[in-house]
Amino acid sequence: MELTGGQLIGNTLAKAGSRTFTGFNPATGEALSTIFHEATGAEIDRAVELADQAFQQYRKVRGAEKAAFLETIAEEILGLGAVLIETASLETALPEARITGERGRTVGQLRLFAGMLRDGKWENDTTDPAQPDRQPLPKPALRQVQIPIGPVAVFGASNFPLAVSVAGGDTVSALAAGCPVVFKAHPAHPATCELVGRALLRAAAKTGMPDGVFSMVHGASHEVGMQLVQHPLIKAVGFTGSFRGGKALFDLAVRRPEPIPVYAEMGSTNPVFFLPGALQKNAAALAQAFANSVTQGTGQFCTNPGIFVALNSDKSFVGQVAEHLNSISVGAMLTSGIRDAFLNGIAHLKTQEGISSLTHTEDVAPTLLITTTAHAIDNPGVTEEVFGPSTIGIMADNKASVLAFAKSLQGHLTATIHGTAEDFAEYRELIDILTLKVGRLVFNGFPTGVEVSPAMVHGGPFPATTDARSTSVGTTAIYRFTRPFCFQDLPGGLEGEKW
Amino acid sequence: MELTGGQLIGNTLAKAGSRTFTGFNPATGEALSTIFHEATGAEIDRAVELADQAFQQYRKVRGAEKAAFLETIAEEILGLGAVLIETASLETALPEARITGERGRTVGQLRLFAGMLRDGKWENDTTDPAQPDRQPLPKPALRQVQIPIGPVAVFGASNFPLAVSVAGGDTVSALAAGCPVVFKAHPAHPATCELVGRALLRAAAKTGMPDGVFSMVHGASHEVGMQLVQHPLIKAVGFTGSFRGGKALFDLAVRRPEPIPVYAEMGSTNPVFFLPGALQKNAAALAQAFANSVTQGTGQFCTNPGIFVALNSDKSFVGQVAEHLNSISVGAMLTSGIRDAFLNGIAHLKTQEGISSLTHTEDVAPTLLITTTAHAIDNPGVTEEVFGPSTIGIMADNKASVLAFAKSLQGHLTATIHGTAEDFAEYRELIDILTLKVGRLVFNGFPTGVEVSPAMVHGGPFPATTDARSTSVGTTAIYRFTRPFCFQDLPGGLEGEKW
Repeated sequence: MELTGGQLIGNTLAKAGSRTFTGFNPATGEALSTIFHEATGAEIDRAVELADQAFQQYRKVRGAEKAAFLETIAEEILGLGAVLIETASLETALPEARITGERGRTVGQLRLFAGMLRDGKWENDTTDPAQPDRQPLPKPALRQVQIPIGPVAVFGASNFPLAVSVAGGDTVSALAAGCPVVFKAHPAHPATCELVGRALLRAAAKTGMPDGVFSMVHGASHEVGMQLVQHPLIKAVGFTGSFRGGKALFDLAVRRPEPIPVYAEMGSTNPVFFLPGALQKNAAALAQAFANSVTQGTGQFCTNPGIFVALNSDKSFVGQVAEHLNSISVGAMLTSGIRDAFLNGIAHLKTQEGISSLTHTEDVAPTLLITTTAHAIDNPGVTEEVFGPSTIGIMADNKASVLAFAKSLQGHLTATIHGTAEDFAEYRELIDILTLKVGRLVFNGFPTGVEVSPAMVHGGPFPATTDARSTSVGTTAIYRFTRPFCFQDLPGGLEGEKW
Repeated sequence: MELTGGQLIGNTLAKAGSRTFTGFNPATGEALSTIFHEATGAEIDRAVELADQAFQQYRKVRGAEKAAFLETIAEEILGLGAVLIETASLETALPEARITGERGRTVGQLRLFAGMLRDGKWENDTTDPAQPDRQPLPKPALRQVQIPIGPVAVFGASNFPLAVSVAGGDTVSALAAGCPVVFKAHPAHPATCELVGRALLRAAAKTGMPDGVFSMVHGASHEVGMQLVQHPLIKAVGFTGSFRGGKALFDLAVRRPEPIPVYAEMGSTNPVFFLPGALQKNAAALAQAFANSVTQGTGQFCTNPGIFVALNSDKSFVGQVAEHLNSISVGAMLTSGIRDAFLNGIAHLKTQEGISSLTHTEDVAPTLLITTTAHAIDNPGVTEEVFGPSTIGIMADNKASVLAFAKSLQGHLTATIHGTAEDFAEYRELIDILTLKVGRLVFNGFPTGVEVSPAMVHGGPFPATTDARSTSVGTTAIYRFTRPFCFQDLPGGLEGEKW
């Protein structure tokens, strides 16, 4: 399949810009061959204007037809076959087996939303009947429906080149809501983006969706994204990536003449609490499983457990985790930028007095640092995310220190507690504290592995996300791109319309 | 009943500040006797800290108990009897009959939310069952619930001293959600605020709610509100008032180290479209009813119809509206500031070439200005809100001009269309355009009169509000103060808990 390296402005290819870039093979550092053209200002404007035109038709498309569109996207992605797996693996250094699994999640996600659209209950269509005889004034008939908000700008993540990228969670939930998407392709996997983007456009054409329901623009610089977010016809932003990137887009969006919502999922360190009863029963297995969770995907998950808490009396458990980490080898990181940030982040932590290392590593390798709750509370930087295969053990003298540390936490996507029934009774307050800090609380499991299902919440208080009232994974994600709308005394002839 | 003129910091009275102010009788301009003390920085901090302490208990209070709390607030408000009606009428110049009606709405609103809490369905408690045998990985059990977000700062409106003030829609929905409220009393009706605030605190004490579940601070200057919104323990803001006030609070809130949501309902001009068939059938009755809607409550409603659109061929209808307006006398405006803004706003519009006046008025009186769609499209300031008993007729040459004007509109709370079945068929596109511009679309009625019921949406795209995904009236308002939360493999022993 020949790659074009251009913008997909709906069904029109555009590559007028003179700024170009390529993808890289992270395993070797070598530049890949396709030249990608960064979108020009005019190309971005055209993509957004076309999205707005498409919106006028697309918002009227009924659930069953949108469902067919999403299901056809899934088929087209599967139809790409091995070339998609190989391309994504080449651009990200993620193993082909992992990419294949991720394709399954992507396709499953499209079908899950399709099912929700066919079912239709998500619309919460609510009617308060008229009471024409009410005194002193008659009551009108009111009907509340969810309507789509308009064209959405979506920024994919580097760490999930399929499931959190072109046809990933943000795109799917926006399209399901009835909103066209202008996707900012990720410069770390531009060829994968083009393959999936063209598959999506084929599905749109096959199912009769309007031109402009999806567009994709490339850019290695920040300017493309900044221009996209500031375009007056863009009505919301979905983003997965770094705190710095997400917060910068949020700051731009709220300063627009018309502020718009930004759903930025900016990751977190996902604290895991190992309570004494659980370790007494099960330390060996937990140490192994925890080391696996820390290093899965070279630690490049938003839900990677970057901090854990244990009592000083359970220090032998920490030693077991270190042993496992020392014996695990990890793959290359996604980009040289991510690799440098990991190495610098770990080096910076290691220089701090009060932090010591239990793993004997150089370069990118599984890393275990330890410190005390007192040090971590006094130095909140310790618990900030270092994206990669590392974790910091926060050692507590007693229950009071555990609770004090939990209280000091900022917002995270997840927290996890390993405990027995006795632990949960003894540490009841910990559960209450953590509920206010995260979007998902895991018991006796690990935060990595995010189910795509109706009850999932992949979100959490700032700085994990810019909007804790939302989730970027699971069907509830659709409500980020709709708003409630009320018809008062809608004439009978219009009742069956789609709004 | 003796008024204290101080802050209600939970159950503790505080009036350490040296800045003082009084309410006014808007009908006479005379200062009222009670001296109110503006909250000091320390008093604001104490109120918020107490709210945060109360939150740790209040978030665990079950629906039935919160329902009893809300119902008891309603009883305590009714128990105030005539003194509340007289005080609110004195401070606002709104007639006692109107205040009595508003008390009914306030009490009804409290009971509506109580009913929703007893029913419990609003929590959307959703479970995805575990699949322990799923391949390649077992699926955990997931449960999604809504949890409260924390202490909320609420700013009441001057124009609804009961229904959109101390125990109004924002306070009720926050308390129903499980969030303590720190209320910024409105300086235009401080005595009414104190009466209702103390009634609310009596209800909290009677139903065993924690001290700090509600506090109230006074302030005639902006500083009190600004400090409140910037306090790190405040997690959301509810506001009803001017664009300038709401946008200023929004700007502060999104620039905090931890940005928080601001639900500011900033009013709008609520365009009303009179289509030709409706006028042919019913011009006389519509002119009368429209003039009543424009002048109701001296035009001081967020949903007041400040613009209407008719065809030039229906100019005689406009003349009839003018006649009715000339014959209606209105009461005093709520404050001297609102009065001055109304007079200046009308004077400013009248000086514009292209705008003429059809009413012969000076001082505060029903006012009808007219202009053309072309002028209104070129001068968007024409359709900005002038709060008070005025409306601007936008005269259209033909259907194309009507649609062009509708497209040029910014966000409003409501739009209204008067038409016959034939009109709606002919102007189908108008309905689609307006759906994107407002939160509620009224057919053959008037926007004033906002039902408090499950399907109501009192919100709309910016600049009508700062968050179109929400409503400030109706039971859906509760979701402004909750967020979705996911438990993964919650132990059986904890399943019955309140989170």
